[in-house]
Amino acid sequence: MKKETVGFVGLGNMGNHMARNLIKNGYPIVVFDVNTDSTNSLKSDGASVASSPAEVASAVTKIVTMLPESSHVQEVYNGSKGIFSTVQKDSILIDSSTIDPSVSQHMASEAQKKGSVYLDAPVSGGVNAARDALLTFMVGGPETHFNQANELLSLMGKNVVHCGAVGTGQAAKICNNMLLGISMIGTAETMNLGMKLGLDPKMLAKILNMSSGRCWSSEVYNPVPGVLEGVPSSNDYKGGFGTALMTKDLGLAQSAATTTKAPTPLGSVAHQLYRTMVNHGLGGKDFSSAYLFLQDKNQK
Amino acid sequence: MKKETVGFVGLGNMGNHMARNLIKNGYPIVVFDVNTDSTNSLKSDGASVASSPAEVASAVTKIVTMLPESSHVQEVYNGSKGIFSTVQKDSILIDSSTIDPSVSQHMASEAQKKGSVYLDAPVSGGVNAARDALLTFMVGGPETHFNQANELLSLMGKNVVHCGAVGTGQAAKICNNMLLGISMIGTAETMNLGMKLGLDPKMLAKILNMSSGRCWSSEVYNPVPGVLEGVPSSNDYKGGFGTALMTKDLGLAQSAATTTKAPTPLGSVAHQLYRTMVNHGLGGKDFSSAYLFLQDKNQK
Amino acid sequence: MKKETVGFVGLGNMGNHMARNLIKNGYPIVVFDVNTDSTNSLKSDGASVASSPAEVASAVTKIVTMLPESSHVQEVYNGSKGIFSTVQKDSILIDSSTIDPSVSQHMASEAQKKGSVYLDAPVSGGVNAARDALLTFMVGGPETHFNQANELLSLMGKNVVHCGAVGTGQAAKICNNMLLGISMIGTAETMNLGMKLGLDPKMLAKILNMSSGRCWSSEVYNPVPGVLEGVPSSNDYKGGFGTALMTKDLGLAQSAATTTKAPTPLGSVAHQLYRTMVNHGLGGKDFSSAYLFLQDKNQK
Amino acid sequence: MKKETVGFVGLGNMGNHMARNLIKNGYPIVVFDVNTDSTNSLKSDGASVASSPAEVASAVTKIVTMLPESSHVQEVYNGSKGIFSTVQKDSILIDSSTIDPSVSQHMASEAQKKGSVYLDAPVSGGVNAARDALLTFMVGGPETHFNQANELLSLMGKNVVHCGAVGTGQAAKICNNMLLGISMIGTAETMNLGMKLGLDPKMLAKILNMSSGRCWSSEVYNPVPGVLEGVPSSNDYKGGFGTALMTKDLGLAQSAATTTKAPTPLGSVAHQLYRTMVNHGLGGKDFSSAYLFLQDKNQK
Repeated sequence: MKKETVGFVGLGNMGNHMARNLIKNGYPIVVFDVNTDSTNSLKSDGASVASSPAEVASAVTKIVTMLPESSHVQEVYNGSKGIFSTVQKDSILIDSSTIDPSVSQHMASEAQKKGSVYLDAPVSGGVNAARDALLTFMVGGPETHFNQANELLSLMGKNVVHCGAVGTGQAAKICNNMLLGISMIGTAETMNLGMKLGLDPKMLAKILNMSSGRCWSSEVYNPVPGVLEGVPSSNDYKGGFGTALMTKDLGLAQSAATTTKAPTPLGSVAHQLYRTMVNHGLGGKDFSSAYLFLQDKNQK
Repeated sequence: MKKETVGFVGLGNMGNHMARNLIKNGYPIVVFDVNTDSTNSLKSDGASVASSPAEVASAVTKIVTMLPESSHVQEVYNGSKGIFSTVQKDSILIDSSTIDPSVSQHMASEAQKKGSVYLDAPVSGGVNAARDALLTFMVGGPETHFNQANELLSLMGKNVVHCGAVGTGQAAKICNNMLLGISMIGTAETMNLGMKLGLDPKMLAKILNMSSGRCWSSEVYNPVPGVLEGVPSSNDYKGGFGTALMTKDLGLAQSAATTTKAPTPLGSVAHQLYRTMVNHGLGGKDFSSAYLFLQDKNQK
Repeated sequence: MKKETVGFVGLGNMGNHMARNLIKNGYPIVVFDVNTDSTNSLKSDGASVASSPAEVASAVTKIVTMLPESSHVQEVYNGSKGIFSTVQKDSILIDSSTIDPSVSQHMASEAQKKGSVYLDAPVSGGVNAARDALLTFMVGGPETHFNQANELLSLMGKNVVHCGAVGTGQAAKICNNMLLGISMIGTAETMNLGMKLGLDPKMLAKILNMSSGRCWSSEVYNPVPGVLEGVPSSNDYKGGFGTALMTKDLGLAQSAATTTKAPTPLGSVAHQLYRTMVNHGLGGKDFSSAYLFLQDKNQK
Repeated sequence: MKKETVGFVGLGNMGNHMARNLIKNGYPIVVFDVNTDSTNSLKSDGASVASSPAEVASAVTKIVTMLPESSHVQEVYNGSKGIFSTVQKDSILIDSSTIDPSVSQHMASEAQKKGSVYLDAPVSGGVNAARDALLTFMVGGPETHFNQANELLSLMGKNVVHCGAVGTGQAAKICNNMLLGISMIGTAETMNLGMKLGLDPKMLAKILNMSSGRCWSSEVYNPVPGVLEGVPSSNDYKGGFGTALMTKDLGLAQSAATTTKAPTPLGSVAHQLYRTMVNHGLGGKDFSSAYLFLQDKNQK
């Protein structure tokens, strides 16, 4: 039985892999991206290419979007050639971008006016997880529509979690990344302090990981070069999750914290430190380069 | 074969359990504490009671000490009726207190002048772990003496880790607790933010724990009441590890960071927050009461 | 010669005094506020009362607005009965609210579409300065229109500063308040530390104020009760500038810092501390109650 | 009438000027420093040179010391050739070093055992103030001995303030420098934010200085190049008060805060930021280079 065609807008580092996983699972897709190299590459893999989000929305009733920031989401959905200009009744719109939860909520209410449904479904896991369909999706939206979205999302990830009403997917994502951002700097300063006190870094990591200090950053993504293999810190902080992106996510967390009047003392300091790291040229390096930033540069 | 008598100084919440585990394993012990209730209790379990640390040191050549702060260690070892006033040649002195690494190093050098050996061996794990001989010991000192100490320590804990030269046991301990102190506040502010954004706390904890935000504090010691059973947060923050003790350990970390010129931005903010919590009356509550401290009290 | 009637929208703690100062200077005014007590009070002083911002804008071509937050500004200008629905060509709209600079810029561009002019003109100085026409106005907008606005503003304040293009008035305001918010907490923790170290608070304030530590908060608004007379700290932190308002202004600063990618480490920590103070019930107290918040409550 | 000979130990950047001001006022002096260039230079100006602090103390009964850190003070007073080894009864020992208040208190109690008096008298004001006898001395010690010390100190400074018991001079000094360190970073981030928001830096400084944000750092030591003439920021951050020295003073403040259990949230973040600046090579630059550190380096 032929599968229904799916639309995909946003074919960047993450989106192009996600779209390909739909193709691999037998779904015809129609795609749009402002970058024609990206669309050409998908075309050669079998995708149809549309000239605008509006054209995608007039062709199909299931669309996935994967965009860098809130402003792109507003343009792709609400712009003059945006999805909402042509969206069909009962369409399902799944936005996997990481953006401000209040923007997600606004998009959902616009979608509702058009008789369609918008769900926020941001992801955790990086480029490799996108390629290997190992992403985790955190989904916000009504239960019934979650089940419809789940069918597609489970082809692109291994975990699809329903978090609650629209916007809660974003909320879960920025909460996770705030705690991650804090833990990573905490791990970096702890490892650096321990080494200055005479501890071997592998020994210290072992002790932390068998004790109450352990966290994802100390266990599977240690920021000190040489402690673990195959992580960015052991590859000159290349690849991974860029400091500029972490800074952006912590900015979303701060904005949400201000709106909800929730104090986030460590989240705000972490945000400012990553911001300063970006200013010092580390924006394109993995965020575990916090360790590099704290190092004493006079000792070389 | 009769076992050699061991000395034990410091019979507080932790020390009394540790001493009892030596008795259970067939070791005769001679004890001292300024609190006679504590010594009487051990006496009824078979311990001999000495009138001073000096008397302990003149009676035995293996001594374990478990004291609250650096100043007590200095008094017990270096005071007028201290261990060093009578210590025998080739004695092994094992200090399980959590204190400033530089004080440990000073004690070790004093011990050396007397022809004896001092090792720092602070513990992780709380009162229950002390009772059940499930502590982790982080030991600093020469390899050969570590092996001698190991024989006794393994009767009181399940993990005995050799960290390096004297002082590195303390270093490992304060590094672990600094990262723990940071992660706990990070978890508290993240959980609070997520709940304000509409997420169910158990759902949010589940998502964090399957993602990169996971840490010991989110997984096994969650600070939000009701997320986990059997943790202090679900028992009005009673029991566990007091905020005042965490504040003390972070003070040691800050002192070590200043001495070694290692930047610890989040460690220092965490220290100040726990200090402020103590000032607000939470010193005797578990340190996971950071969640309580961040709460909006106007909403009741 | 009869003076031109001026519109005034927003008659709260500040606005009612500012409007009265226009009356005192011989200007007929037409006012609007959602609170009828406020409009009745102005009516008894000679003001005409309109039923909406739209009615004000249809009656006059010079309008001053003084509102609590960005959302109120959007409603008063852009709402269905807002100023823009009836604004006359060549009107001058002067907004003295403290809001997000990007909202000011948006309002200015909306005004331009209507052939009118919007200037941002937030104030510094509190309720007494408003009453006594001693406010400082920080004005953003074109030079020629600044001169027109100046005529009115100089009746309500003693300093009217042209800061640059529209939005720069807000920028100057939130910069000042960010530095003020930082200095106040800095002064509070410094005074507290000095007193714990045995210094008399008046002596310490004197030393700071003759040295490089001096700031407005140490000199004329000292947060320690009894150091100065006639300031909120010597009156149980009543009156003055509420902690909740400072928190709001620091939230605007954080938002502007995120947008412009400017690191503000101390500004962000200060924001979080004031936020936590609000959560602990100090929102209605003067922001110098930071000193109260840091105090050791166990010592009473 | 011939004046009594005075001893001076520590002839560094500050001390050599202070000692010369005693000579200028007709006091014979006997000096010691480990650096023979320094002693030779004073010798050519008429000073006698001693071979150790002990030799100074055996020759005179009034001694001023000006040393870099606590450890040097301990060596100069308590070392084997230190002042206490030969100090005469009723000697007055005035220590102008900036050190830990508890070390000052320890020295005072040692002095008392010898029948002499120790006062702490740290200074504010830099090298130029030392040269021009414009220093401020903050003095801790008994009233009667303060009056004796005042006679000498007033020859080297313009303000001599009695702060209270011994140690309070240090307390006042580290309090001032903590607030200064906070205000400077606050000013740096505020100026940077304002400029990013489109404000002219001189305009912004003017507004701050006429408003509640004003502080010594914004008014007379502005960290943005070009705002003021004759300050380090307008001379590539050369001269002035080095970041490494500020970091040391904030370390003393943190230590005092931990001992007295006083929360210093902004003081601790400022400490960590200056520490990080030192690690990035700014230790020898003026501490107003905080502005430089926060800058976006990608924009060049």
